[in-house]
Amino acid sequence: MSETEPPVPETDVAQLDEDDRLKPEYVRAVLDAVHDGDDEEARALVEPLHPADIADLFELTPHEDRADLANALTDLLDADVFAEMNDYVREDLIDALEPHQVADIAAELDTDDAVAIIEDMEPEDQREVLRALDPDDRAAIEEALSYGEETAGRLMQRELIAVPEHWSVGNVLDYLRGHEELTTDFWEIFVVDPAHKPVGTCQLSWILRCPRNIAIADVMKREQTLIPIDMDQEEVALRFQKYALISAAVVDPAGRLVGMITVDDIVHIIQQEAGEDVLRLSGAGDGDINEPILLTVRTRLTWLVVNLGTAILASSVVGLFQGEIAKFALLAVLMPIVSGMGGNAGTQTLAVVVRAIATNQLTDSNTVRMIVREFRIAAANGASLGIIIGVGTYVIFGNPSLAIVIAMAMVINNLIAGLSGVLIPVTLDRFDIDPAVSSAVFVTMMTDVMGFFSFLGLATLWGLGG
Amino acid sequence: MSETEPPVPETDVAQLDEDDRLKPEYVRAVLDAVHDGDDEEARALVEPLHPADIADLFELTPHEDRADLANALTDLLDADVFAEMNDYVREDLIDALEPHQVADIAAELDTDDAVAIIEDMEPEDQREVLRALDPDDRAAIEEALSYGEETAGRLMQRELIAVPEHWSVGNVLDYLRGHEELTTDFWEIFVVDPAHKPVGTCQLSWILRCPRNIAIADVMKREQTLIPIDMDQEEVALRFQKYALISAAVVDPAGRLVGMITVDDIVHIIQQEAGEDVLRLSGAGDGDINEPILLTVRTRLTWLVVNLGTAILASSVVGLFQGEIAKFALLAVLMPIVSGMGGNAGTQTLAVVVRAIATNQLTDSNTVRMIVREFRIAAANGASLGIIIGVGTYVIFGNPSLAIVIAMAMVINNLIAGLSGVLIPVTLDRFDIDPAVSSAVFVTMMTDVMGFFSFLGLATLWGLGG
Repeated sequence: MSETEPPVPETDVAQLDEDDRLKPEYVRAVLDAVHDGDDEEARALVEPLHPADIADLFELTPHEDRADLANALTDLLDADVFAEMNDYVREDLIDALEPHQVADIAAELDTDDAVAIIEDMEPEDQREVLRALDPDDRAAIEEALSYGEETAGRLMQRELIAVPEHWSVGNVLDYLRGHEELTTDFWEIFVVDPAHKPVGTCQLSWILRCPRNIAIADVMKREQTLIPIDMDQEEVALRFQKYALISAAVVDPAGRLVGMITVDDIVHIIQQEAGEDVLRLSGAGDGDINEPILLTVRTRLTWLVVNLGTAILASSVVGLFQGEIAKFALLAVLMPIVSGMGGNAGTQTLAVVVRAIATNQLTDSNTVRMIVREFRIAAANGASLGIIIGVGTYVIFGNPSLAIVIAMAMVINNLIAGLSGVLIPVTLDRFDIDPAVSSAVFVTMMTDVMGFFSFLGLATLWGLGG
Repeated sequence: MSETEPPVPETDVAQLDEDDRLKPEYVRAVLDAVHDGDDEEARALVEPLHPADIADLFELTPHEDRADLANALTDLLDADVFAEMNDYVREDLIDALEPHQVADIAAELDTDDAVAIIEDMEPEDQREVLRALDPDDRAAIEEALSYGEETAGRLMQRELIAVPEHWSVGNVLDYLRGHEELTTDFWEIFVVDPAHKPVGTCQLSWILRCPRNIAIADVMKREQTLIPIDMDQEEVALRFQKYALISAAVVDPAGRLVGMITVDDIVHIIQQEAGEDVLRLSGAGDGDINEPILLTVRTRLTWLVVNLGTAILASSVVGLFQGEIAKFALLAVLMPIVSGMGGNAGTQTLAVVVRAIATNQLTDSNTVRMIVREFRIAAANGASLGIIIGVGTYVIFGNPSLAIVIAMAMVINNLIAGLSGVLIPVTLDRFDIDPAVSSAVFVTMMTDVMGFFSFLGLATLWGLGG
């Protein structure tokens, strides 16, 4: 990514708080300078920042001030800053630039970062930027854009070091020293056969520790984790994590080396994919705080309307017992406790199961064990909560029948919560539906409907409303 | 981590499915061999696996079979496998081993991995293992254990390459080639002054591309991101991510270089910290599926009991309106819709805000903007849902007053959900309370209480229950 740009030294970061966040008074000072038209002051304030922090500065600046800030900073706003920026904020800025300016920025970047900038542009602007690039860069970016979004093909960079099998360590050193134009952004070199298929990978530390006359084939590791070019980025991230990779070769369907993915591009994805679950479970979409507000409303409202459907379904169950409620209104007072606690217990199980599926910890081999486990937990928690609420109800209302009914309903709804919390996401996953997106609606529906039904139904059977 | 152990080659992984998970029929075959006492068959099956996959195999094996599996595999169960294993599963196995066996394993590992194995042992067993180690390893591990859990001091390895400032590239090469005992697990070398304080960092690719006579001081990057030894691992992970680091120097309070953290140790933490939010928001604790079941029950039950308190509070609000409900039971049918939809909307906002806080995207600089943003989203969604439910209520029940009351209550509760979804986590964060752990209880309480109160209160004011 930004190997040419130094991180801010630990010792003089007056702009950052102890958590590496830009201090609000610093952000204010920069924006004040911009508002006062004092561009020189603004540039002086921003100059010491790491590109990642300049990107943060733009994210923390209100939408309407971003163009002014960009105009004030101009030359500080380089390719590395764009590479670090939030997608929506970057689009904002890119819209304000001329295509040739975007092309200048893209030309400076590794393929993966250039693609990230260009992929979200309007088709017409995209074509204009591509036309302004020189033919090599253009071909590389066009090819990357031909792979599906969120695949290895989009993530990889084409700049890498590949050497033939028959070279010695000395040949490799001479090659690296003699070719100015080679990338400096690599941590391993790839050894390829004449068909350009990878036959081994070599950590730089191994090369550094060997005499010049040793054959590279004797230094390299033959077993390697190759990434197919169409692999989904989430799978790429899991593979990097599982095998503790620093970089990996990307191969085309014929097995030829076509690119390299490095771990610094993957940490963002690991973070994003792991954090996505919480947002998807709650129906908040990408949950990006820089997203245009209309897009956010649409995403969240869609989810809320679906949930409104299940809420109406649950309330129609209550409707079946209107007669009993009219005669004994205390039922209406207590029923939300049963449904709500079921919802809480179901969400707990759901969160655990969705994480376990996402991290490949829950597989066909241990699904049955997981179901049994959650059933036992639900039974223990249901019994505990049932006793607490039963005793409480008896003490407060002095009605033993009501106490028994609510305790029983609590146990039943906890069991339903536990079982649906496992079975629903596991089933969705079998059908290749993302369990994080769709499970919560069904689980809540189960715990609401069954919470009301078990409590009001048992109360009716017991003659409490009669 | 496991640079000496090759990842499983892409081409012959008959044990893995397309998502890098062990196939259930493979796991069954291994366990069948173990049950039949055919240890040789089990070893033959497991031998081709990467250590990370052997660790997975133990996690997928039921608790009661793990000791048998370990006995069958013996020599395949090496240090790298333990380093990759889930904490609870590892504890299980370590309990079954003799202290000197644990010491043999620990001695093979880098400090960080050895510490991970030893830190969770009983004090007495821990002392026995430490006694069995040789003095150097022992001192290193004892010192690491003296730092707080989840700090840089526990994460770092002491094995690193540090060279003096006055050396040339050639000196560095000769040093690396001439000292067998040096680690091979490094991606950058650190340049230190005579007081052993880091003055620069040098990527191996830069060294490889320079002639021997160049001074290392001219190759290294002077600006570096140093990690204080007591920094929390979550901060370390954010710093690695923000500045795209591959490795970083760890310094003691006097600024001396004492260790190194590499990105492969960080990807686990990034994943874990990002995934933790979803588990904490739902009150599922660590959500580790290998956790002993009693611990899981205790964690989840604590949370459920707290939520029971808020559910009772909400139901006592309903209790205030018992008279109205007895006269007009339809109120009890519709009230869960208002409270439930508020809960859903509140959870959406909460998920977004908790993620934004955890990733340092939401700071003092943009809190006000975030509050305004969520208020606008809540107003838009509340109005939409209010219209839908109002029209629906009018069509189904033909009661215009009831329709207006439920629509107004829906708008009010959505605004409360949006505002409490931002204000509660932001406030908790100001007081250094983890918003992921504590926010959901308060937000749900607000949306339940205010959902019931606004709907039943408005209905009473309107004379619907009269």
